[in-house]
Amino acid sequence: MTTLSPEILTALEQQAIELPSWAFGNSGTRFKVFQTPGTPRDPFEKIADAAQVHKYTRLAPVVALHIPWDKVENFADLRKHAEDHGVELGTINSNTFQDEDYKFGALTHEDAAVRQKAIDHHLECIDVMHETGSRDLKIWLAEGSNYPGQADLRGRQDRLQESLQQIYDRLGDNQRLVLEYKFFEPAFYHTDVPDWGTSYAQVASLGEKAMVCLDTGHHAPGTNIEFIVMQLLRLGKLGSFDFNSRFYADDDLIVGAADPFQLFRILFEVIRGGGLNNPEIAFMLDQCHNVEEKIPGQIRSVLNVQEMTARALLVDRDALAAAQRSGDVLGANAVFMDAFYTDVRPALAQWRESRGLAADPMAAFAASGYQNTIAADRVGGVQSSWGA
Amino acid sequence: MTTLSPEILTALEQQAIELPSWAFGNSGTRFKVFQTPGTPRDPFEKIADAAQVHKYTRLAPVVALHIPWDKVENFADLRKHAEDHGVELGTINSNTFQDEDYKFGALTHEDAAVRQKAIDHHLECIDVMHETGSRDLKIWLAEGSNYPGQADLRGRQDRLQESLQQIYDRLGDNQRLVLEYKFFEPAFYHTDVPDWGTSYAQVASLGEKAMVCLDTGHHAPGTNIEFIVMQLLRLGKLGSFDFNSRFYADDDLIVGAADPFQLFRILFEVIRGGGLNNPEIAFMLDQCHNVEEKIPGQIRSVLNVQEMTARALLVDRDALAAAQRSGDVLGANAVFMDAFYTDVRPALAQWRESRGLAADPMAAFAASGYQNTIAADRVGGVQSSWGA
Amino acid sequence: MTTLSPEILTALEQQAIELPSWAFGNSGTRFKVFQTPGTPRDPFEKIADAAQVHKYTRLAPVVALHIPWDKVENFADLRKHAEDHGVELGTINSNTFQDEDYKFGALTHEDAAVRQKAIDHHLECIDVMHETGSRDLKIWLAEGSNYPGQADLRGRQDRLQESLQQIYDRLGDNQRLVLEYKFFEPAFYHTDVPDWGTSYAQVASLGEKAMVCLDTGHHAPGTNIEFIVMQLLRLGKLGSFDFNSRFYADDDLIVGAADPFQLFRILFEVIRGGGLNNPEIAFMLDQCHNVEEKIPGQIRSVLNVQEMTARALLVDRDALAAAQRSGDVLGANAVFMDAFYTDVRPALAQWRESRGLAADPMAAFAASGYQNTIAADRVGGVQSSWGA
Amino acid sequence: MTTLSPEILTALEQQAIELPSWAFGNSGTRFKVFQTPGTPRDPFEKIADAAQVHKYTRLAPVVALHIPWDKVENFADLRKHAEDHGVELGTINSNTFQDEDYKFGALTHEDAAVRQKAIDHHLECIDVMHETGSRDLKIWLAEGSNYPGQADLRGRQDRLQESLQQIYDRLGDNQRLVLEYKFFEPAFYHTDVPDWGTSYAQVASLGEKAMVCLDTGHHAPGTNIEFIVMQLLRLGKLGSFDFNSRFYADDDLIVGAADPFQLFRILFEVIRGGGLNNPEIAFMLDQCHNVEEKIPGQIRSVLNVQEMTARALLVDRDALAAAQRSGDVLGANAVFMDAFYTDVRPALAQWRESRGLAADPMAAFAASGYQNTIAADRVGGVQSSWGA
Repeated sequence: MTTLSPEILTALEQQAIELPSWAFGNSGTRFKVFQTPGTPRDPFEKIADAAQVHKYTRLAPVVALHIPWDKVENFADLRKHAEDHGVELGTINSNTFQDEDYKFGALTHEDAAVRQKAIDHHLECIDVMHETGSRDLKIWLAEGSNYPGQADLRGRQDRLQESLQQIYDRLGDNQRLVLEYKFFEPAFYHTDVPDWGTSYAQVASLGEKAMVCLDTGHHAPGTNIEFIVMQLLRLGKLGSFDFNSRFYADDDLIVGAADPFQLFRILFEVIRGGGLNNPEIAFMLDQCHNVEEKIPGQIRSVLNVQEMTARALLVDRDALAAAQRSGDVLGANAVFMDAFYTDVRPALAQWRESRGLAADPMAAFAASGYQNTIAADRVGGVQSSWGA
Repeated sequence: MTTLSPEILTALEQQAIELPSWAFGNSGTRFKVFQTPGTPRDPFEKIADAAQVHKYTRLAPVVALHIPWDKVENFADLRKHAEDHGVELGTINSNTFQDEDYKFGALTHEDAAVRQKAIDHHLECIDVMHETGSRDLKIWLAEGSNYPGQADLRGRQDRLQESLQQIYDRLGDNQRLVLEYKFFEPAFYHTDVPDWGTSYAQVASLGEKAMVCLDTGHHAPGTNIEFIVMQLLRLGKLGSFDFNSRFYADDDLIVGAADPFQLFRILFEVIRGGGLNNPEIAFMLDQCHNVEEKIPGQIRSVLNVQEMTARALLVDRDALAAAQRSGDVLGANAVFMDAFYTDVRPALAQWRESRGLAADPMAAFAASGYQNTIAADRVGGVQSSWGA
Repeated sequence: MTTLSPEILTALEQQAIELPSWAFGNSGTRFKVFQTPGTPRDPFEKIADAAQVHKYTRLAPVVALHIPWDKVENFADLRKHAEDHGVELGTINSNTFQDEDYKFGALTHEDAAVRQKAIDHHLECIDVMHETGSRDLKIWLAEGSNYPGQADLRGRQDRLQESLQQIYDRLGDNQRLVLEYKFFEPAFYHTDVPDWGTSYAQVASLGEKAMVCLDTGHHAPGTNIEFIVMQLLRLGKLGSFDFNSRFYADDDLIVGAADPFQLFRILFEVIRGGGLNNPEIAFMLDQCHNVEEKIPGQIRSVLNVQEMTARALLVDRDALAAAQRSGDVLGANAVFMDAFYTDVRPALAQWRESRGLAADPMAAFAASGYQNTIAADRVGGVQSSWGA
Repeated sequence: MTTLSPEILTALEQQAIELPSWAFGNSGTRFKVFQTPGTPRDPFEKIADAAQVHKYTRLAPVVALHIPWDKVENFADLRKHAEDHGVELGTINSNTFQDEDYKFGALTHEDAAVRQKAIDHHLECIDVMHETGSRDLKIWLAEGSNYPGQADLRGRQDRLQESLQQIYDRLGDNQRLVLEYKFFEPAFYHTDVPDWGTSYAQVASLGEKAMVCLDTGHHAPGTNIEFIVMQLLRLGKLGSFDFNSRFYADDDLIVGAADPFQLFRILFEVIRGGGLNNPEIAFMLDQCHNVEEKIPGQIRSVLNVQEMTARALLVDRDALAAAQRSGDVLGANAVFMDAFYTDVRPALAQWRESRGLAADPMAAFAASGYQNTIAADRVGGVQSSWGA
């Protein structure tokens, strides 16, 4: 059995992954959202479910919220509820894509009144952040257009900057704005923040507290994502990850499920660039469990990240550097692949047990009966989904 | 002004495009479905709207239905209603993607009972076809899986064939089964009918009454769609088009909006292969008007097809063939592009007027006040969308 | 250490991978072909190098030839030479893309004389096959066009069928025609055999001795290749693989290097569909070692296939089927991933030693000094590349 | 016939497109470079051919050189030769991809000696620029790696910056460095300058005289290129275009041939952003005429740019802005499309005649007999291609 060095175990011990509250609600495609017994009806139930993930993995101590989906009357109550469940509240995600006013844009809208409404929503999110103790305001914008000519690309970009500046200026000293980019969807011709370059140019003009969010599913086919990770770390502007995986578009599948080797390469560049366990970089999941069970889906996800981090930490970087320096293509690749192909799972299972965790968190959760309990208890009400 | 020859005008006069009833309802993305005043609440209102498209263009005499979205108590009434509005009912589209039972497949499901339910739905559709006088049963299958290992690809393909055979065997003498393929969505790892090759292999094994449906938005990036049009015509298996356009995935934008030159190339191959005004090939739209007005969106769409057909008919095929034979690359391309760049719109406008139509159908519809009328009249009820 | 069952070891023992002679010559891009000391100057040296791969792996007993690159005065001598080196001659690959006459096509050319020249080349290849004892004539066609209008897509497809038929009719009783498809390159607008559907339709019309060749690098972005493997096996028309890997286009990288998990999925479908160690299906490599050493590149490649086959054989198919039947998405995926993540390398090394092979073929070859010997010996002459 | 306003004609009169000397030499793919009678054997003949393009179009007064392909003993002679032919020498393009030393990088190489060699090459290019009177040093880097692990992505990026800084520091007061990005090829895993974001971040750190070059063929599938044009203009960092077109990868086809509407959208954003006839932005072609005639291919290309610029100038921007402001999706799109579909060719032909040019430059060149003359005269010697 491969053993993991104390240094590696220390690094793994510090690893913390933020869960999205919305992963515990129902999700789907434009064709259908399937229902699942036990799905949370409110933010309190979502956090209870998220806490299960942390309980069995000790990897997921933070839960991100989405406003207004997770709006409650008293965020102090929600914060207390989270603490009671052993987790804390994290990133606040804004929403400017589900109001009829935003059909043609929010922060970029031609109409100053609509822009102000969208800015105000973000200021309200900052207020929530003060109550929840959150550091990061994450902004994903659904803005764009469907038809050439429909929108003034340049004017929108200028207005985007002005709107972001107003939001940025309201940030508290220890707060940050994290701007996510996305290749396409829900807009199908142009998207106002479509690539890392745009997000980078925008946040660079805002100031030090503005950073880029890299969602691993938001790129054009064939994009070398680990290169972008490297570049953003080098430029000091990588603020957070939205982990998930994809075969085609923004599929939002379980991280590591579609291309495990890509996840390995990403995590290697994270380590190479000083991003592992760096408090400046939030490691978040952003996934949809359309057809699989949600809590186990999240457990599987954080385990995937942990296992792949362990593999990436196993890379013999001295041997790699030597092979790279000497132009030994196959030798360098072999050092890299050797780590990837190493089965770290037995060692991780053993280590988990040494820390009082179950060797197999998936099995332990399944055996706990929690799923049956919530399926039985959560009767009535409206299951949470993206709509609420 | 470019003039159009009598032969071209005769060809254009025969052109008939089938409209999808669902284009008149609301649609959107998984993020949001925006509402629009005047949206139909039932199939009768959808058909009334579709008839407006035909009224101003004389291009759209047929309306396709979707079961169960367009299910009515008495299809004879609906048929009469259509005829009263100057249109007829066309292709019946089945739906096996919105029932909780179909979460893991319908015609391909592991469970024979679920498969039978899906087969029975199609048999019911055939019953409807007898009432509506429809020739084509169009089957688009949302079936697939999201995670490697989740599904037995081979077993599903075999079961697909068995299920299709049962449906096929029920077809009346003058009825056809048209099998649509789609690259991905809503499934994100594998799709059971992902490409034209699979659809072709399946329908070839069924028999002569089974054909392929080519949706122009259902291909991998970079796919040469006109090549597939050519090939299916050559193989005698092109049964219908679902026209729309896309920049990224299955965007379902207005046909010709994203890449007009691609539409030109497709229509040229249709003509080259004997597919124009060929009754064996249904020319249908399948689009979503998420942010634009629906009736004008459909008018714009059929006009785009008409205008591009006119351009494709303008190609000097003798000159083209001569240049092709002599290896004159730039010469052949110039013949092709000359037709594409010719502005046929003035001649078409004049021709419309000669037929008693408005020169500009978009303007004529806008001036008619119909949109305001339905916005005022259709108050209350539930606006139609993909859900109903 | 994971152990491999006797059944798995028996399956692995039978595995045979065919090497392309051209992998031992220089290759590159349109920008530059880099030279390497020791590169073969003729087919005899290529075969000597190929035999090294088999010597250290016992996985590569067959060498494919390319005509005219590997044309020799006396193929019987070459055959004897191969046997002396412990390998045999395999698939004959034709070449209709490097003659000035083929600028606008070969088997599809407008000019019957050019078509006949290309057909005759294939008949000559069949003659070679009789001398070399080869079963398969593999046809990859570079034919297509760069500009819309340049070529008559339909006429070319018809001529392709006629030309192939003439070649097919000359095949001996135990010979086969294997038609490869490719998404694009060297043609950039249309390609005459661009997808599996076209290759399938063509070979289906030829007869039982015509099959499809699937090159893993010849698909559109995002294509689910294992699905095509499944489908061709199901249709009884998978004749051979050209293994390699890619990130972008037809990169021709080492198999398994770009997406190891994809290779796993492909091999799983091979096993699932009865294709493993099935004599009807040739497992060939088709790669370019532009920047890495060639013999070690080939050793690494066959080991990648072997290791991944072992992993695919480890899938607990009963458990997988049970999870699939019950709709247990995460469970089925876990069974699948468990095999992929298992480190089979130690068991394979041990097994190799038990068979009298070096545990680490890469190291053993490096230690042999062969590379230095050929670098010293092969001075003068012209290094082989795609041009000769 | 559509007429073009005096303002539009004035804008078109100022339009100047730079031709690449290498477009007049042979080019091809890794599979084959076809020969053509009359192909230039040296830079002097290339410039003579380029001058033909300008002679018939008055659109192409500048010829870009590539070092070392266009290296001559005395650049003053070449400059005089150009002037005698009515054109001037333009951008100097460096080459760090055809020397054996650059197999594993040039400006990014691990070995300082190789980096220095590559830097020195660029300093030599700057010396040439002083002799030719060129303003721009354009740097396209073929650097990257083929296998994960082969290269240290981060180290290479840091070294790239250091190398570029040394080159930048040598620029004269009126000289600029223009850094091109490319998605992939000839490297197939990672490329050191793969996207506009990387090029932008690099040149932004260099200073005001460093700009980005946007090659229209160097993006991932689906990329909205006009968005990048808009953004770079907005950021003040668009230095030059390399125009060409593509269906798949870096196909280097004639600009406007693959997707005319995309060219229209790009030129619209150029106009919108103040980039038309802006001396800060070089409009260059970068194409390969693999199968078509070279001089006519370049004439076709500059005409395509001219015609599409005329269409883009026809957009009624007031009407467009009004429709955009009011959320009139179809109306705004219609304004846009109306310009695209307008046939500007007759008006341009008439205007050409009014300026003493032939109405149809393609026909005039064909009639001139120049092609036959060079085919007859240029016998012997080695035809220019990328290799020389």
